[in-house]
Amino acid sequence: MSVPDAQIHPHATGPAALTAAKHQDPRDIIFWTGWVPLCLSHFCPASQRVWIALEEKGIPYQYKEVNPYKKEDAFLRINPKGLTPTVQYRGKQLVESLILLEFLEDAYPTYTPHLLPADPFERAQVRLALDHLSKQVLPAFFKTVQAQDKDKQKEELQEYYVALRKLVKEVKGPYFLGEEFSLVDVAMAPWVVRDYIIETHRGYKREEVGSGWKEYAEALEKRDSVVRTCSDKEHYEPIYGRYLRDESQSETAKATRAGRAVI
Amino acid sequence: MSVPDAQIHPHATGPAALTAAKHQDPRDIIFWTGWVPLCLSHFCPASQRVWIALEEKGIPYQYKEVNPYKKEDAFLRINPKGLTPTVQYRGKQLVESLILLEFLEDAYPTYTPHLLPADPFERAQVRLALDHLSKQVLPAFFKTVQAQDKDKQKEELQEYYVALRKLVKEVKGPYFLGEEFSLVDVAMAPWVVRDYIIETHRGYKREEVGSGWKEYAEALEKRDSVVRTCSDKEHYEPIYGRYLRDESQSETAKATRAGRAVI
Repeated sequence: MSVPDAQIHPHATGPAALTAAKHQDPRDIIFWTGWVPLCLSHFCPASQRVWIALEEKGIPYQYKEVNPYKKEDAFLRINPKGLTPTVQYRGKQLVESLILLEFLEDAYPTYTPHLLPADPFERAQVRLALDHLSKQVLPAFFKTVQAQDKDKQKEELQEYYVALRKLVKEVKGPYFLGEEFSLVDVAMAPWVVRDYIIETHRGYKREEVGSGWKEYAEALEKRDSVVRTCSDKEHYEPIYGRYLRDESQSETAKATRAGRAVI
Repeated sequence: MSVPDAQIHPHATGPAALTAAKHQDPRDIIFWTGWVPLCLSHFCPASQRVWIALEEKGIPYQYKEVNPYKKEDAFLRINPKGLTPTVQYRGKQLVESLILLEFLEDAYPTYTPHLLPADPFERAQVRLALDHLSKQVLPAFFKTVQAQDKDKQKEELQEYYVALRKLVKEVKGPYFLGEEFSLVDVAMAPWVVRDYIIETHRGYKREEVGSGWKEYAEALEKRDSVVRTCSDKEHYEPIYGRYLRDESQSETAKATRAGRAVI
């Protein structure tokens, strides 16, 4: 049986490739990632979250790229399920993007900016928004992409708007907490830089969310750490085409089809 | 239309009632809870998590009980969706049990025991286990309870065993991290004290999980803070009967039926 996902362009390109090239030396942190910004599967936007945080804080790290559909033995030995992002920290590995983001805050407390605020109540508000991303925003995004029936596509897109409207109500601007860049921004940015896909193929419009969503999305996609972790758009078609035809074999695609939590 | 869930016994009883009676004075923290240990819906075991943490750490709090199926105006004013647990902290409210547990660690850093370890890598391991509870363990528990077809009940119970076996592999004993009581124990305990329900009605056996699960479960249910937040078992039938017949109207029951994330 052919594995259609095996033929994607396997490397980061553009600004992401430049950033990767600067982080090849051994460090305490090894950041294992799929090439990031143009595919829609689990590992890619989730990997970009961790990459943005590493870049934001200036944490020394070694970049190691995994071809997500053709994983190497060296990677599978440390991570038998082959999940990305994986962070190896002094020889021990961790997974799950949101947990990795908290880990970087805990393990590098003197590196700034702090992506979690100092105030306990504000920290909880950031975590509540992250929970909303995981439970409402991202499932609606993936369902919108994978829906095949026209009416279903419209219905899922409406759900996506509803989820974003709930989020944007809490955005103080320009970022979630105001001037301070936080984990909510880090966690949302990878989906903002991919929203041209649903704009082109599902009729999504940032303006349609309202309440300053367009301005927030623009602030995120212009942030240096986000720009530096984006590949060129030219390689996107072979990947997102599979999602849009609901043919992808990634874990996220399968979970979305099965109605399970996706990220 | 009659609302069957409206007739449940509305108050904590037994040890939980005694604990509640000691916490009636106004404090920085107001802990809004459904009466806890015998119902299976969203708010109850999730409320017990927060209650266990408050008791473990000796944080001063005011206990306010909500009849989950007949919520009072005073509560609905601060929490229009009527979710429990809700914590009011100096007049501002927060929800979501896992986020509340992190909040208590952040807001009361000098109160011991620390339910998150100091080591960043261990903190991440605790959070990974909590994520496993949310994504695998609890959905399997609720599906086991709500399944009506005999074969489906067996299938869901096997899923629950699989999820617990994955968890118990990480348990050092007597608690998740060893001697130190942590958020994993806090978060799991409310489901351990309710497992007699699936033992009686679905054939669940702690021994069947293997690898020391029985001993871990016993350590959790004997922990003082867990004992102190348990009501008497005599009032359980009217509640769990509805779940076992898949008639409950709680948000968790509906989410389980719809295949959405439950907690």
